Formats: sequence, C-alpha cells, structure tokens
Amino acid sequence: MKIEKNVLIMSLFPNKITKLFDETFNTFKSYEQENAEKFIESLSDKIEAIAVMGGTAVSSELIKKLPKLKIIANYGVGYDAVDVKQATLSNVKVTNTPDVLNDEVADTAIALSLCVYKNIALANQFLLEKKWLKSEYPLSKKFSGTKFGILGMGRIGKTIAKRIESFNCEICYHSRNQKDVKYKYFSKLEDLAEYVDTLCVITPGGEETKHLVNANVLQKLGKNGFLINIARGTVIDQKALIYALQNNIIRGAGLDVFENEPNVPDDLINLNNVILTPHIGSATVETRYDMGKLVYDNIVQMLTTNTTLSPVN
Amino acid sequence: MKIEKNVLIMSLFPNKITKLFDETFNTFKSYEQENAEKFIESLSDKIEAIAVMGGTAVSSELIKKLPKLKIIANYGVGYDAVDVKQATLSNVKVTNTPDVLNDEVADTAIALSLCVYKNIALANQFLLEKKWLKSEYPLSKKFSGTKFGILGMGRIGKTIAKRIESFNCEICYHSRNQKDVKYKYFSKLEDLAEYVDTLCVITPGGEETKHLVNANVLQKLGKNGFLINIARGTVIDQKALIYALQNNIIRGAGLDVFENEPNVPDDLINLNNVILTPHIGSATVETRYDMGKLVYDNIVQMLTTNTTLSPVN
Repeated sequence: MKIEKNVLIMSLFPNKITKLFDETFNTFKSYEQENAEKFIESLSDKIEAIAVMGGTAVSSELIKKLPKLKIIANYGVGYDAVDVKQATLSNVKVTNTPDVLNDEVADTAIALSLCVYKNIALANQFLLEKKWLKSEYPLSKKFSGTKFGILGMGRIGKTIAKRIESFNCEICYHSRNQKDVKYKYFSKLEDLAEYVDTLCVITPGGEETKHLVNANVLQKLGKNGFLINIARGTVIDQKALIYALQNNIIRGAGLDVFENEPNVPDDLINLNNVILTPHIGSATVETRYDMGKLVYDNIVQMLTTNTTLSPVN
Repeated sequence: MKIEKNVLIMSLFPNKITKLFDETFNTFKSYEQENAEKFIESLSDKIEAIAVMGGTAVSSELIKKLPKLKIIANYGVGYDAVDVKQATLSNVKVTNTPDVLNDEVADTAIALSLCVYKNIALANQFLLEKKWLKSEYPLSKKFSGTKFGILGMGRIGKTIAKRIESFNCEICYHSRNQKDVKYKYFSKLEDLAEYVDTLCVITPGGEETKHLVNANVLQKLGKNGFLINIARGTVIDQKALIYALQNNIIRGAGLDVFENEPNVPDDLINLNNVILTPHIGSATVETRYDMGKLVYDNIVQMLTTNTTLSPVN
C-alpha cells in the first residue's frame, strides 16, 4: 500500500518500522541530517505527519512552522518532549503508544527491584573479580513479603502490581485520585513513602510531576527503604536522591531514568547501593516493534480517515 | 534454656544463630580450627549433634567416628554433601531446611531470568562506562509471555511457577513423576527443552541428577533458549554449557551455582551472554536466619524428644 503523503521521521526507529514507513509514505528523515532544523524548514509546506521518539523535542516553534501538520505520533507512553498545548492550539493530534509496553516496563520494574534488593550487579562483579575464592558474598535483604508502594496507579502501575502480588507483597499506592483497585490508597505521597519498604515511581513526567519525590519524601522512605524509578528522571529531585543515597537516608535505588539523561552524574555512578540502567524500560525487540507499529498505525489512520488509535489530546 | 549436650558446629552460621547455639548447648566449632579433623577426633566420644552448611562435607568416615551422633542438621535444602546412606546405617537422623527458603530461591530465579533476558548486568556496565553518551543500549528480548520450563516441580519449583504466572508465561515442567499441578508435564527433559524458551533448573543435586542437562538437552533448548540454574552446579554438564554459550547453541544463561564452586572457569567469566552470581540463592539476612533457626530447632528437638521437624532419612 502506497499513501502519497509526506511524513517527517525525527528519530531512528527499529529497522522493520523504518521499512514500513518507507514502503508506505514519502519519508523525510531529519535524524540523518547534519542540520535537522534547516532540513525541516525546507519541507515546511509538505509535512503532514511526524513520527518521533521520546528523546527528541517537538517544540511549539516547530509545530508552528508546519502548517499542513495533522499528527505528531510519539513512540513511547511518555510524551513530555512534545508541546501538546501548542499542538492542540494548532489543531494537531498527538498520539502515544500505551498498553503495548505495559508488560515490558513492568518487567523492568521487577528486575530493578530484585536487583537492588539482592544486589545482583555487585554480586556479579564480585564473582567476575574472583573475590568469591576468598570470601562469601554479604547477605542481602529479602524482597518477598515486603510492602511495595507504587506512585502512579495507571496502566503500567496496575501491571506492576499484578506481578508484585505473586511475591506476597502488600501493595499500596498514591495517585492524584483513588482508583478502582483493591490496593491500599494513600492520599499523601509522604504517608505512602513512610509506610512502604519500596517506592516505585511510574507516574507521567512533565512540569506537573517535577521533583514530586523530594528530600522530604526520601526522608520518609527511610534508611531501610528502596526507590525504583522507571518513569522519568524529572519526577525525582536527583540531587536530593544522591544526597539520600550517600548518607544512608534511604537504603538503595534502582534507576532506569535520569534528569538530563544520557548524562548520569559521577556521584550516582560511584555509589554502591544502586543499580543504574540506560533507560531500557521498554527496550526489547518485540515491544519496540509493537510500539513502532502503533506509531505507524496512528499515522496511517490519521492521514487516511482523520482518526487516531491512541490520542492524548 | 541450657541443654547439657555437645554440638559440633562445622560451618560459620549467622551471628544470631551461633549465639543461640552457644547459649543452649556446649558448642565445639571445627571451622575455627586449623586442623578440623584432629579437633573432631578429639571429641569423638562426646558429639551428639552436628550443625553444618551445604558447602562442608559430612563423610561416611566422619559419621563412623562419632558413636554418640544422633543428628546431622544441614543448613540448606540441598544435602548432597552429607553421606545420608551412612547416616541411616549408623542410625543418625539427617535434617535439612525446606520451605523457609522457597520464596528466596524463587526470587533469585526470577531475578536471574529477568537479568539475562534484559541483559541487566551489561546494561549497567554500559551506563557506568559512559557508553550511553555515544549510543543507545541494544534491544534485548521480551520475557513476558514466553514459555517457561521448570526442571524439578518440588516446593521451590512451585513457588517459582506462582511468580512466573504473573508474567503471563506458559509454564511447563519435567520431573521423574507427574505432579498434581495444573502445568504442562513433559516426561522427557529433551522434549521440555525443545518446547520452552527458558529452562530453569531446580532439581536436587547429587549423583542421580549429575549432568542431567547435557549437550543434547542444550541443543534442544536451542539458539533462542535461556538456561537458569539455581539448583546445583553438578546438574549441568558445565563444559557442554560453556561450549553451547560460546557457539550460540543456546542464547544465554543465568547461573547462581557451578561445578566445583567457588571456582568459576574463565571461559564462563569471559562470556557476555551470561549473568553469574556467587550462590546467593537463599542469601538474605531474613532467610538465612530462618534456615539457621530450623537447624537449631531440629537439634533441640532431637536431643530433647528424639524427634525432628524436617528429616530427610
């Protein structure tokens, strides 16, 4: 199927997805250009759709420059890099890729939780450096049966909770409003942090949630508490977190996202009570294909029937 | 409570447990001695109970040297280092510590499975070495929804299965006899290996299961298959495994146990499709306390009422 429409692809998608786009549309790849801005400007009267990944910003200036733009299809569930306000003003639909990544991000949350409780990365290093020949690896802390707090009980939060139930944990959560779930609700984040052993952050990013997890919340989580972040780096006050980890205000952290990533401060890298991963939340071949396919399907549908599958505005 | 009985403690137990023993019995600690054998011989007409960890052998010679011995209380569920045959002949009870470690070992199995699918250790290393500044970490393979095979559907196998269910995996198993569980049974290990994506080994060690997972089973598991071992190193033909990992006969492995541990061959250490941990299966403060307490309780009960809580013979 060939659709004679012009699509701007702003990020490097999985090969199969790029191929799909190329076969269907006239594609223009700004990520391949030395001067992406200039490249996009030269196409300003052509572009009807944008396919973009979370890391690349779609600013209000850019949106205003593209009068024929109908859709910004964002790859990923978080769309904080897209100026949705301007998109709405310009009558441009923004879509994301919910649901198809729930399992994957939940799996990453469980992996980080178990890794930080069991200190798996350090245990692995201990073996690789042959220290096991001289001594036993220190005992870690039991995860099963602990109190697990979720900040953000949306689709992914519920998927995490389902898995955590099988570990006999007591599940609690905080979100702006109480949800129709059987888990214990805390209307204040501080109270949740104080009650639980693990605080797992899976709330949307953006200005509204910036530094929601601050020094006070970390203090409440306490010296036996673990923090997991698979949402956005901005949700946590990273400086306060580093201070808390350095001074045993909390016990450890499993972090897949960072403020200003891919930069990760040396102060975090040098800690031995953390497990840090490079934003691999949804990063499997299978899930990334499903996400890319949903980006593609949203654009196809918008440019052929003026509807979308997963709009956010 | 003081019980005037003589207990030989052959391994370094968690502090709290050692304290319990010291407060209750006359204790003799062979692990503190330069010449443990000589030390034990000097006590041969005294010792009525042995407390020992999995790593330390209790040979038939040793058992024969202790005429008053009534119980060998083994810390851990695997008791392959104890000569149970000789113990039975000598009318000595052997106990282990089942159930109290089910959750812990199951958690380790899940951690290794997610780590090897998501390549967590390498992803962590990638970030620590600041490679993220230059490129994205490669995509890994989705775990949720895969076919998960368990070799050995005992107490721990069932506890693993319960957790794995929450990841929407299809669970299958092989054991000598079919069990009263809802999961798909394979009477042949080769057939299970061929069917599943992950083969998780949690069968007892010892001669009967030696090299049960051999080159043929690994061939059947195939180039997209993952192997997890949280049982005993002896269950797997380690040389065949290394060959399979080096030649992409299987895709990866998560190993907590090894033949001849704590020695781990360089050929395993140098692979990048494995996650290796130093036998941390049950190694948390909480679980190790529970295990030690059960060792202690078995000895108390044997020496006061001639019964045991968790006998294996």
